[in-house]
Amino acid sequence: MKRYLYYFGGGKAEGRGTMKDILGGKGAGIAEMTNIGLPVPPGFTISTEVCRLYYEKRMPKTFDDLMMKYLARVEKDVGAGFGDPANPLLVSVRSGSKFSMPGMMDTILNLGLNDKTVVGLAKKTGNERFAYDCYRRFIAMFSSVVLGIEKSVFESALSAIKAGLRAKTDTDLSAGDLHAVVAAYKVIAEAHAKRPFPQDPVKQLKMARDAVFKSWNNPRAIEYRRIYRISASLGTAVNVQAMVFGNSGDRSATGVGFTRNPGTGEKQFFGEYLTNAQGEDVVAGIRTPRRLLDLGGELPAAYKLLHEITSRLEKHYRDVQDFEFTIENDRLFMLQTRNAKRTGLAAIKIACDMVAEKLITPREALMRVDPEHMQQVLHPIFDSKARSKFKVIAVGLSASPGAAAGHIVFDPDRAVELAAAGERTILVRPETSPDDIHGMYASKGFLTSTGGMTSHAAVVGRQMGKPAVVGCGVVRVDETAHTMTVGDITLKEMDYLSIDGATGEVMVGDVPLTDSEVLQVIRGEMKPAESELCRNFESILKWADKARKIGVRANADIPRDAVMARKLGAEGIGLCRTEHMFFAEDRLPIVQEMILARTDEARNAALQKLLPMQRSDFKGLLDTMNGLPVTIRTLDPPLHEFLPKREELMVEIAILKTRLELGRSCGGADDSTARLNAQLAAKEQLLRRVEELHEFNPMLGHRGCRLGITFPAITEMQVRAIFEAACELAREGKSALPEIMIPLVGHVTELAHQKAIVLRVAEETMKRMKVRVKYKVGTMIEVPRAAVTAGAVAGEAEFFSFGTNDLTQMTFGFSRDDAGKFLPAYVKERLLEGDPFVSVDREGVGALMRMATQQGRKVRKDLKVGICGEHGGDPRSVEFCHEIGLNYVSCSPFRVPVARLAAAQAALAK
Amino acid sequence: MKRYLYYFGGGKAEGRGTMKDILGGKGAGIAEMTNIGLPVPPGFTISTEVCRLYYEKRMPKTFDDLMMKYLARVEKDVGAGFGDPANPLLVSVRSGSKFSMPGMMDTILNLGLNDKTVVGLAKKTGNERFAYDCYRRFIAMFSSVVLGIEKSVFESALSAIKAGLRAKTDTDLSAGDLHAVVAAYKVIAEAHAKRPFPQDPVKQLKMARDAVFKSWNNPRAIEYRRIYRISASLGTAVNVQAMVFGNSGDRSATGVGFTRNPGTGEKQFFGEYLTNAQGEDVVAGIRTPRRLLDLGGELPAAYKLLHEITSRLEKHYRDVQDFEFTIENDRLFMLQTRNAKRTGLAAIKIACDMVAEKLITPREALMRVDPEHMQQVLHPIFDSKARSKFKVIAVGLSASPGAAAGHIVFDPDRAVELAAAGERTILVRPETSPDDIHGMYASKGFLTSTGGMTSHAAVVGRQMGKPAVVGCGVVRVDETAHTMTVGDITLKEMDYLSIDGATGEVMVGDVPLTDSEVLQVIRGEMKPAESELCRNFESILKWADKARKIGVRANADIPRDAVMARKLGAEGIGLCRTEHMFFAEDRLPIVQEMILARTDEARNAALQKLLPMQRSDFKGLLDTMNGLPVTIRTLDPPLHEFLPKREELMVEIAILKTRLELGRSCGGADDSTARLNAQLAAKEQLLRRVEELHEFNPMLGHRGCRLGITFPAITEMQVRAIFEAACELAREGKSALPEIMIPLVGHVTELAHQKAIVLRVAEETMKRMKVRVKYKVGTMIEVPRAAVTAGAVAGEAEFFSFGTNDLTQMTFGFSRDDAGKFLPAYVKERLLEGDPFVSVDREGVGALMRMATQQGRKVRKDLKVGICGEHGGDPRSVEFCHEIGLNYVSCSPFRVPVARLAAAQAALAK
Repeated sequence: MKRYLYYFGGGKAEGRGTMKDILGGKGAGIAEMTNIGLPVPPGFTISTEVCRLYYEKRMPKTFDDLMMKYLARVEKDVGAGFGDPANPLLVSVRSGSKFSMPGMMDTILNLGLNDKTVVGLAKKTGNERFAYDCYRRFIAMFSSVVLGIEKSVFESALSAIKAGLRAKTDTDLSAGDLHAVVAAYKVIAEAHAKRPFPQDPVKQLKMARDAVFKSWNNPRAIEYRRIYRISASLGTAVNVQAMVFGNSGDRSATGVGFTRNPGTGEKQFFGEYLTNAQGEDVVAGIRTPRRLLDLGGELPAAYKLLHEITSRLEKHYRDVQDFEFTIENDRLFMLQTRNAKRTGLAAIKIACDMVAEKLITPREALMRVDPEHMQQVLHPIFDSKARSKFKVIAVGLSASPGAAAGHIVFDPDRAVELAAAGERTILVRPETSPDDIHGMYASKGFLTSTGGMTSHAAVVGRQMGKPAVVGCGVVRVDETAHTMTVGDITLKEMDYLSIDGATGEVMVGDVPLTDSEVLQVIRGEMKPAESELCRNFESILKWADKARKIGVRANADIPRDAVMARKLGAEGIGLCRTEHMFFAEDRLPIVQEMILARTDEARNAALQKLLPMQRSDFKGLLDTMNGLPVTIRTLDPPLHEFLPKREELMVEIAILKTRLELGRSCGGADDSTARLNAQLAAKEQLLRRVEELHEFNPMLGHRGCRLGITFPAITEMQVRAIFEAACELAREGKSALPEIMIPLVGHVTELAHQKAIVLRVAEETMKRMKVRVKYKVGTMIEVPRAAVTAGAVAGEAEFFSFGTNDLTQMTFGFSRDDAGKFLPAYVKERLLEGDPFVSVDREGVGALMRMATQQGRKVRKDLKVGICGEHGGDPRSVEFCHEIGLNYVSCSPFRVPVARLAAAQAALAK
Repeated sequence: MKRYLYYFGGGKAEGRGTMKDILGGKGAGIAEMTNIGLPVPPGFTISTEVCRLYYEKRMPKTFDDLMMKYLARVEKDVGAGFGDPANPLLVSVRSGSKFSMPGMMDTILNLGLNDKTVVGLAKKTGNERFAYDCYRRFIAMFSSVVLGIEKSVFESALSAIKAGLRAKTDTDLSAGDLHAVVAAYKVIAEAHAKRPFPQDPVKQLKMARDAVFKSWNNPRAIEYRRIYRISASLGTAVNVQAMVFGNSGDRSATGVGFTRNPGTGEKQFFGEYLTNAQGEDVVAGIRTPRRLLDLGGELPAAYKLLHEITSRLEKHYRDVQDFEFTIENDRLFMLQTRNAKRTGLAAIKIACDMVAEKLITPREALMRVDPEHMQQVLHPIFDSKARSKFKVIAVGLSASPGAAAGHIVFDPDRAVELAAAGERTILVRPETSPDDIHGMYASKGFLTSTGGMTSHAAVVGRQMGKPAVVGCGVVRVDETAHTMTVGDITLKEMDYLSIDGATGEVMVGDVPLTDSEVLQVIRGEMKPAESELCRNFESILKWADKARKIGVRANADIPRDAVMARKLGAEGIGLCRTEHMFFAEDRLPIVQEMILARTDEARNAALQKLLPMQRSDFKGLLDTMNGLPVTIRTLDPPLHEFLPKREELMVEIAILKTRLELGRSCGGADDSTARLNAQLAAKEQLLRRVEELHEFNPMLGHRGCRLGITFPAITEMQVRAIFEAACELAREGKSALPEIMIPLVGHVTELAHQKAIVLRVAEETMKRMKVRVKYKVGTMIEVPRAAVTAGAVAGEAEFFSFGTNDLTQMTFGFSRDDAGKFLPAYVKERLLEGDPFVSVDREGVGALMRMATQQGRKVRKDLKVGICGEHGGDPRSVEFCHEIGLNYVSCSPFRVPVARLAAAQAALAK
């Protein structure tokens, strides 16, 4: 039987820090801190197993009794009674899943208060104001998260009462005033819930517990899990813990902090606190909190202890800690500790610093950096020259570094809308909340007017790797009018705004971006010595290269991209799309000439014109890669992509015809008629050919090797160009290693047909050029049939490269261009765990990849197998490629560092 | 080591009749006849193994010596010397593969003749005319098939000489005349071949042998193999046999025959012969041969023996024999026997007759009928009333029964062209040859002016199951002018012609067709007693049903088709495509209303209008099937299929806009402007919605269950209609067994989503109607991912039905609509064995089907698995479905008998 409850208190806990699956992150942290003797208020954790039983409607009947027994232990440890009017025990109820998840119910404080125990609490503490402050907070919090009453209802009521009393802040309210607030809150709660506010503490506790369970499946939590691919089956734990009070006077405080700066990675004790406050005040951003360093002045003993404890925790966990604490009348209590989320910049620096400090090994350092972080630090930053021309209108807290510029939006839905239309947006909010998560995902950066370094916007910004400037008090946001005002400047939706998450600066306008430090170093525009980031970046990658088992190549079509790819560590080109060369302005007319050719002679003439162009393309690419393998794919796209659109021609012809017709009837001029007729004839001729090439399903049509089979002359020209280029290099004493890749093969005979052309032309060319070069011939595996019959295909192929974009399209029967019509419904209905075009679908597409690799290697032991779809740069897909034993992944040049790290992590995870 | 040569002669053969793989059909027949003591000229067979070695360029160096040793045995048996000028041995060289193949080199007779042996032959036989007749035939034949010189060159020369000599027929030529012919032929051969006609008999033999091997891979043979799916790896054998001479005088003859009529199956000794002729004269159609029955009058002893021998052969082989013989001076020699090719009509009658004669068992009878034959006899025949209005212009030999009407074509390429454009054609030729095979395949029927019942056109017609009228001497065909003339009637290409292959009648015009006898009986328009065909047809199917292991269902959307399906033996409906009901004229506007709906309310209103229509459709179908399972697929096609075409709307709008624009500039009337503007606005509104629905790859787009997921109300309406119909029937005391099938599932979650709707609505409806009906919920397996993850899918599905059309498209990445652009090149280059849309591609699509069936049944033991793609009616695919253990196949109603027989054959083949 799974265990349902885990006690902690009195220096011992039934759980341990490693039990995140069962206790959630918060519960595990509390257990661990208890076990190592830190001051933690006693309590118990309801395990995630109970959450699962709750959802299956199978919670044991005896559970409530068991829970009350655990509660009794808390009563004993604290020396107070739950619901005891004379000496009431109050508890907090907090959710805590394996992964920290904004969007779930977070915390209810002061549970156990009712009309009677509040009197007892006042008497016991001798602080009536404190007791009623706790009670009004509890009623509001419980009503909001358990009873589902809008928080703003209580906030408006409080504002109204304060206005009536001419009180400016909450602290201006007296005990008597708070009596009135409590009375008002209870009336509001009863009116909304249609029943009195629950007075039975046990009932309160059960309701709160169930609310935590329910919050696991609220839409925000689901959306968050979708984005971060967290399994819905994990469930959440519930932590019930004796209250300690940061709001019990001026010697009390509550705060949060980090052992190092989670934005930059600097080794500095970093955080925020408020005196005489409860936790919610700090994170909610209602009062702007003070810097943790200042606590040393106000409550030096507690501060010193906190510093000691958290340093110890960092060493204990060997990672940066994100902690919560409360000081009750000078006495420090730790409420939570966990490994801190951090930006890419911070992750890289912390990992390298900790290796230097000998706290972790390089291999451990590799696991501390998210592969996406490697891309994050390549993100553009503001161009330093250009930015000086833009006006800085405000400076907020630099919560998450990076540069972002875009249209102002005030509404998260609008951000999603604009992102879908390809627009960049900056989400501007008084403060963000879990309800905004979809809009934050869609925006380039966030600006909030309230909240601190640990506010929602700050945390999410760091986690998503997006720039965030928070607590920018001079900005007034009018959510109704959809404007933001700073002094006399008012900006409205769609105006341009730029934010610098590293400096906190807010600028009006669309500040141009420039390369990141790393890229500046790579391009030689900055010296490596000047960039600590770049040095750390290279260290991580150097360690990664030692650890990883699979190769990393880049997809590049032109020498410029190939240069960047090599500098970022690519060990070859995994995919050169030759058609990209065909679209160049000076070539398209020749390509069209080739397509429109009516005879073989005319087609060959056009191909002859293309030959030297392709040769010089290939020569540049092969030269750049200097002997590393360069996989060149023969022509792939349907030919009509190179011609004008059919429906446009039809419309143009219809217009011309109508003009001619009407022109006659109202007496048009003769020369214009002749001109129109000539245009018409030309367009009609073009349309005829376009019609011939028109396809109902171009994705499944005349493309890939099917082109090379119907027009062998195209393959011949391309192969000739490749080998002339390689031979020229060889004659110049250089190395070149072309790998010719035949696309869209479904049947081994297709490959054999094209391979015969490759071998023949290659031999002819090398003979003519009197030099030999090494080369390979292989195929894309992108048609399901090729995967299913991979054994046969491997008989002809020296290498496979999974074209996972097409393989995903055909395996799912989804056209990527059209899936937008139904994928949103799929996401909403939770029919797909993730977007299969982002991460390889392991059960379906992945099963085919595994099968093809195994079958192929059975036939050809040394078969080289790689991947060149966009999945090649996706860490989860790289992990899968490692698992099934691919030789390499290939991705866009800027994803190469991501893939290198992901490959290392996959190798280390084993 | 494989054996290369097999001797036959002197009452014993080294081979046997069962060795067709090694000896070819002809060689096996000769060996068998020799072994059972029939008079067969001695000789030897070069095995098919040698052909394979020839193609691999690995023919053993010792082979020629070995062959000469075998030749020496023939010399000894015959008592003549090969190349001996005094007593020359002449041989025939004939190809013979496992399956008889028009298109391969057939025969060279009289090999061994040269300028010296011809003199010896003349002396030995005392018949100089005969000797030179043999020599001129040999030179022409050898030159044509071995040296590749056009036959017509020799024919023209002969005509010229005959004209010069005023000879009407060949027999008018004297020995001296034939000397001149031989001289002329030799000059011609030398001029074309650029070297003297080979005089060395051994060299002649080797050249002829190699020519036979080469003919295995000539384009006609390849085309034939492609059509009949004969493996290219079989190779051909070569038969070298001592000549006997049907042209050695008036007591000599040569002929071919059948033990029963291969067109109708009648038990009659049937065939043709020519006296004083060699074999080529009979089949080539140069002289019109006489009926075999007449031989009894001319050469009664030989005739009697022939009749006895062939009757014995029929009993020996227990099948109708197709034989060749030669009579040399009253002495009968058997040259070939093989099981006869026959029409569907004949196959069915012969099979049933032989069972009645107790010659074969019913199970054997099943193997004697090609499943396609079952469809052939359902082919329409001429409407007897209508045909009387058409003029019969000629009557030829009724070589292959059936009715065909279409455009006259004289050129096989033209027939292919017109067939591709969907036109019916009748191929009219003086005589057909293997060069015409592609055009014959493309035509509905053939008419020839020369040739007999065993001419090429007749044989091919029977084999293809196409009507053929041959030897229609009154028809003069002008191949140059592309006309045919009968008396004063001249018809040209594209004129309509109708032919009745059962009566030999040729009619001008497009005679309307009516149902076959079988269908007339089924429809009650004819009594079963009146139709022997129908009785036999039913016998075969009755036997088949006993033998087969898998079920046969039909695809039917409307009650009329379901009625026919049941009468033809369907055991249920395997696929009802509900969208076919949507396209009905009265419904399309409502369907469009549903699609164009902007709100859920509007959409639901339209769906409510469709509900009663669908309900009555389903009720009819379920009622017809009376408790047999009816698999109903929910809506499948993309919605834009129900709307006007996007590009047409774009053109209409462009025209309207241009008219408005120009109208203003040349002063159009106001009311017309208003009208145009109103039209424009409506079209633009429609276009907007059409644009929203437009897809780049509709095949991979928003269709199938994706529709039901985005618009659950559509699924709900359809399920409600199904269950209201079923419940109504149940309340009327009738049976109904609906099986709801969800299309295009790729992920089990899609099925689960739709299944939940089905279950909910089904329960609601049954509760409301206060009656329960049995039902199942399952899915199409047509997306590769569904096949790959079939285990998971089976968790939700009670049945699978392979949608092999889509599964083939997606597995190959071929759009069927677009494949026409490259598939011809694939066929030409022999990249595909067959069309994967006709027969299941076993290696690729088939592997997925096998995998899905196995994985599915692992999860759900009683999973019912069927197929409802068009492959369900293809015999080879039915065989495969049997092999992988499907529960049933489903096909169009008229293919049900084909599938029943194919299923039986698959079961018996095991």
